[in-house]
Amino acid sequence: MKWKILLLAVVFFAGISFGSLVTGQQPQLKKWQKDKGWGWVWGKDDEVGSLNEMTDASRLSALRIVERGKVYDLGVLYDRTSYKWPGHSPGEIISFRTPEGVKRQQDQKELVNNNGSRTAWHSSALFINDNVATQIDGLGHATEGDDNHWYNGFKEADWGGNWGPRKADASTIPPIVARGVLIDVAGLKGVEALPSNYNISSDDLQQALRKQKTELRPGDVVLIRTGTLRYWGETGSDHAKIAMHDSAGISVETAKWLVEQQGAMMIGSDTSGLEYNPSEADFQTYRDKYRSFMPVHNYLLINQGIHIGEFHFLEGLARDQVYEFCYIACTNKIKGSTAGFTLRPIAIR
Amino acid sequence: MKWKILLLAVVFFAGISFGSLVTGQQPQLKKWQKDKGWGWVWGKDDEVGSLNEMTDASRLSALRIVERGKVYDLGVLYDRTSYKWPGHSPGEIISFRTPEGVKRQQDQKELVNNNGSRTAWHSSALFINDNVATQIDGLGHATEGDDNHWYNGFKEADWGGNWGPRKADASTIPPIVARGVLIDVAGLKGVEALPSNYNISSDDLQQALRKQKTELRPGDVVLIRTGTLRYWGETGSDHAKIAMHDSAGISVETAKWLVEQQGAMMIGSDTSGLEYNPSEADFQTYRDKYRSFMPVHNYLLINQGIHIGEFHFLEGLARDQVYEFCYIACTNKIKGSTAGFTLRPIAIR
Amino acid sequence: MKWKILLLAVVFFAGISFGSLVTGQQPQLKKWQKDKGWGWVWGKDDEVGSLNEMTDASRLSALRIVERGKVYDLGVLYDRTSYKWPGHSPGEIISFRTPEGVKRQQDQKELVNNNGSRTAWHSSALFINDNVATQIDGLGHATEGDDNHWYNGFKEADWGGNWGPRKADASTIPPIVARGVLIDVAGLKGVEALPSNYNISSDDLQQALRKQKTELRPGDVVLIRTGTLRYWGETGSDHAKIAMHDSAGISVETAKWLVEQQGAMMIGSDTSGLEYNPSEADFQTYRDKYRSFMPVHNYLLINQGIHIGEFHFLEGLARDQVYEFCYIACTNKIKGSTAGFTLRPIAIR
Amino acid sequence: MKWKILLLAVVFFAGISFGSLVTGQQPQLKKWQKDKGWGWVWGKDDEVGSLNEMTDASRLSALRIVERGKVYDLGVLYDRTSYKWPGHSPGEIISFRTPEGVKRQQDQKELVNNNGSRTAWHSSALFINDNVATQIDGLGHATEGDDNHWYNGFKEADWGGNWGPRKADASTIPPIVARGVLIDVAGLKGVEALPSNYNISSDDLQQALRKQKTELRPGDVVLIRTGTLRYWGETGSDHAKIAMHDSAGISVETAKWLVEQQGAMMIGSDTSGLEYNPSEADFQTYRDKYRSFMPVHNYLLINQGIHIGEFHFLEGLARDQVYEFCYIACTNKIKGSTAGFTLRPIAIR
Repeated sequence: MKWKILLLAVVFFAGISFGSLVTGQQPQLKKWQKDKGWGWVWGKDDEVGSLNEMTDASRLSALRIVERGKVYDLGVLYDRTSYKWPGHSPGEIISFRTPEGVKRQQDQKELVNNNGSRTAWHSSALFINDNVATQIDGLGHATEGDDNHWYNGFKEADWGGNWGPRKADASTIPPIVARGVLIDVAGLKGVEALPSNYNISSDDLQQALRKQKTELRPGDVVLIRTGTLRYWGETGSDHAKIAMHDSAGISVETAKWLVEQQGAMMIGSDTSGLEYNPSEADFQTYRDKYRSFMPVHNYLLINQGIHIGEFHFLEGLARDQVYEFCYIACTNKIKGSTAGFTLRPIAIR
Repeated sequence: MKWKILLLAVVFFAGISFGSLVTGQQPQLKKWQKDKGWGWVWGKDDEVGSLNEMTDASRLSALRIVERGKVYDLGVLYDRTSYKWPGHSPGEIISFRTPEGVKRQQDQKELVNNNGSRTAWHSSALFINDNVATQIDGLGHATEGDDNHWYNGFKEADWGGNWGPRKADASTIPPIVARGVLIDVAGLKGVEALPSNYNISSDDLQQALRKQKTELRPGDVVLIRTGTLRYWGETGSDHAKIAMHDSAGISVETAKWLVEQQGAMMIGSDTSGLEYNPSEADFQTYRDKYRSFMPVHNYLLINQGIHIGEFHFLEGLARDQVYEFCYIACTNKIKGSTAGFTLRPIAIR
Repeated sequence: MKWKILLLAVVFFAGISFGSLVTGQQPQLKKWQKDKGWGWVWGKDDEVGSLNEMTDASRLSALRIVERGKVYDLGVLYDRTSYKWPGHSPGEIISFRTPEGVKRQQDQKELVNNNGSRTAWHSSALFINDNVATQIDGLGHATEGDDNHWYNGFKEADWGGNWGPRKADASTIPPIVARGVLIDVAGLKGVEALPSNYNISSDDLQQALRKQKTELRPGDVVLIRTGTLRYWGETGSDHAKIAMHDSAGISVETAKWLVEQQGAMMIGSDTSGLEYNPSEADFQTYRDKYRSFMPVHNYLLINQGIHIGEFHFLEGLARDQVYEFCYIACTNKIKGSTAGFTLRPIAIR
Repeated sequence: MKWKILLLAVVFFAGISFGSLVTGQQPQLKKWQKDKGWGWVWGKDDEVGSLNEMTDASRLSALRIVERGKVYDLGVLYDRTSYKWPGHSPGEIISFRTPEGVKRQQDQKELVNNNGSRTAWHSSALFINDNVATQIDGLGHATEGDDNHWYNGFKEADWGGNWGPRKADASTIPPIVARGVLIDVAGLKGVEALPSNYNISSDDLQQALRKQKTELRPGDVVLIRTGTLRYWGETGSDHAKIAMHDSAGISVETAKWLVEQQGAMMIGSDTSGLEYNPSEADFQTYRDKYRSFMPVHNYLLINQGIHIGEFHFLEGLARDQVYEFCYIACTNKIKGSTAGFTLRPIAIR
């Protein structure tokens, strides 16, 4: 029996959380209900949604998944050429100060004089949209209804503004540290990337999970791979190629399965919008059914308070068959932004 | 003997890195030399500098510091009112699309039609400088010499450009996962915040470390607290108050001690520039001595290839007396940016 | 009698309009009524207001005022340092392409290759507000009422948008060619510039006109000099000095006299807002009386459909005692802009 | 002899310039030489070039061309969709303040309170390139040589900067008031618009002038019509159609004929670049011959100091067969801009 005592001692020494790693237990969720998910359950002032589920214990549990310390960078590189939805504003990163400019202009005399080292600097000015490159949509991004409300019933007439929404902007997204799971649907299908307008079903997800031998747990960040970002290249400048695959994604039914049956706390993919975009053939039926041009956004962001991860680069994880990891993402802290953008979330294993 | 075998097995199972947690050992650094630091030792194409020291083992070791899973958000909230150095371009976050605007303009007819849910969206356009709010300076930020070179000898004539520096921009900063140490100098001095133009010496740092019972190890991210961000408020709009303390910082001698004696892999603080800014009384002497208006930047960024953390919010760590933690920071992935900006680094304990 | 015949022949040759120059007649106005002015008299779709009064004949008459061909540039030079109302967005003019950048980046290979002359180019990108430097306010600039309507009853709920107002934006301002009259109030008072919060009365205007021996005619562009722009310097960077005088201007009563008694078709001055801004002592009384923070804007732009000229540089005209001239101004043709800005109207004499 | 005396008296009364109208004489040019044009003849600090030729007399002469007072607006309307050269930065005009936003945000309490009229305002923020819509290129726009010099020998090493060129930026372009001549080449050819890559020869110009019965005079602003802007529509959004014709233009030989034989003071057209762009078939020969990708720009802007008018809308003039007129154009007064842009030049007849 000695070894049992010893094991207990070791477990005690390593702390409770190490125990949950060994046993595979996820700390209990606070508000999630099977068959229902979350919804507006966090109080009338809440701007955080399902990410309220994170606790010290859940984060520690996620960190304890790490075995090697290998980091996968899930961000893609952005510049003026990068693919984005055409309805967003374009972007430029422009040299604002350069050493030559500083020295020629002499507009900062007190800096440039008595400067034997001939020191100067580079800085850049950016004109940029907050829905570009690797993103996490804030809960204020999507609205619905004639009252234009978003998550938790915040209405445009009350909380709109000239400088971004004044409730549930992206600055309210807390640092995310959670168990992450990759579901490699492109891998399941044996294709480089899913075809245009491919509608990922919950069956697809379950088959992929079985193949991967991965289980979902309530509170997970679920990342679904279509393979689209295989074509990002350096800065996402091959718009036609990316667009070809970018329309693959999940339907509302699949989102519901992930949230209401599995307790997914956040859902993302390697496309610009996560969700299935109907083909021309399907367009009318789809529109009649969902009465929205982005029903998964309606469901997740508005109805459930669940953040959406977009353009997450999943090629490295897929290549190494890393299906379970610690997911960490910290959005820009900019008041009035509607999404975390040009992000660099990481998966650590 | 059974228990010894068992313990070995457990340790083996948990991996080498778990061992390093138990023993408190930091993995060896690859290129650092005592009394010298790093310098341009990483090969002529290198854009990463001392952060090349990070390995799976070092990251795992840093992650293993975490005991509770508590996260400290080191980012400050940015908006148009936020304090910044006046030489940088100003910023606006502007509602680009709003539900009312989308519906009134009808410029996206295919989206708005057959849209029974009356779905719409918010997005924002930003004009922003890449040296605002919580930052990590890229190695291309500072230049010196008549040839305007930066870290590793990259010269403006070769690697300058209209859209930001083309070598060692901020997108080349890898995800940072490392042991972080807070040195609370304001705490040592028993003040809310250090006075204007306070020159933090290596003695100050050593006294604070002794008081805190913290030891530095090679490869650390060292964060030095002046208390300045106590006055950030919501968005850093009290410029006079922030400016009053923002000039406190370290001297070149202190930076050298941290790098060459202690092996600090990155150094940051809660001010806009980390370094001591001389008072008027001291101005001429200082300029004659260092021949630069930002000698710590010259030393760290250009000469040593060490990134600088700026405007890191350290009040929470200080309050809880958390002096050792896992530091995680992922900069925006924007080509041509000279610093990671509006960041939200985290300290996990 | 021969000479009479000859004179008739010459006059005939020069056309009817030359005749109106000789006789000093102003062509009749179409819709102006004494004691009433204009108002919303131009039809429910009108976006032009009182400038509808311009005709070929009125323009020709104005052009015939010119005797020497001397041009006065009424625009002030704008850059990032220029004084503006703090509620407007800031501005930067940034080198977007430079010859060095073009050649270093080689991003336009087809241009730069086989380019023996080593040709390249400069272009700039601007972030700029549409209410800066020398301006003419569009009729969509000011709104009032809970329905937020502007000139002619255009309502925000119908004609607002994300990309500027969609009715009566500044692109609807036609080229303005009209008789211009300078009323030099600073000259009348014998001061460099009117004091802070000076309320220009219709008596002031009448005295100045008498002193100048100038008469107003229906259809005039009336420019009122406070002397404020004497302090613009190169780019308007002495904000304190400009602000000190910028609060001098006309009251609603004075505006009414100009419009309803004199038929002024457009009114401008050398300040940022034309109208009197109350001193602290006067603030409450003023607000109680007018129930608006810019009642002259309400009266002119919304109620009367009269454009307002702002920051018109009148120093040259005053110095040369040119009180009557041909005023020509052509606003930028930018959809969604709310004012013509950074303009260079001219007075020709 | 009496009538001669009388005529002299009348002429005296009307001024010298009226005399030049009667006789059709153009005032003498100051520096132009036949077979040579201008070049760098205006002194080493000059930033104005051939526009230095304008005098009170020349302006008065141009104004005296006006017979009816009819104005032709030569500007095209710009917005985010407008056709432009892809090497320029994109543009957005964004509602910065709206009445709803002002009232919801309450960020300007002192304005919004005690505001019984419920007054508010619209203003817009623009991100815009200075080479869009109707333009006049400044003399600092084009550079050549390894020293990257522009007009009058200004070199990048001396006069470059981060905020636009510091010599001969567009703010140095004086108000232009001059005799304008339309040469309707599309009209001559009997086509809606000249075909792609059509190279307009001096023969074409002479034939058109003969057909029109128009003569050129030294000091003219010459506007050449290709018909391209017939396809501008509201805001220039049919890029393919515009691009198809936009490559028609003049060659260096034609430019030389206009400048060196005819004394054209400024040359413009209804295309984005005035000059002929070679077809693929012609590309190599063309490049070998001119050693520049924009040789007409080199010749006019750099070598001759002659401003170029671009995207001037000439359809109205052509329709009415108005070939001689008073041309008036006033560029934006923005320091560091490289061209007057989104202009609204006018032709008055």
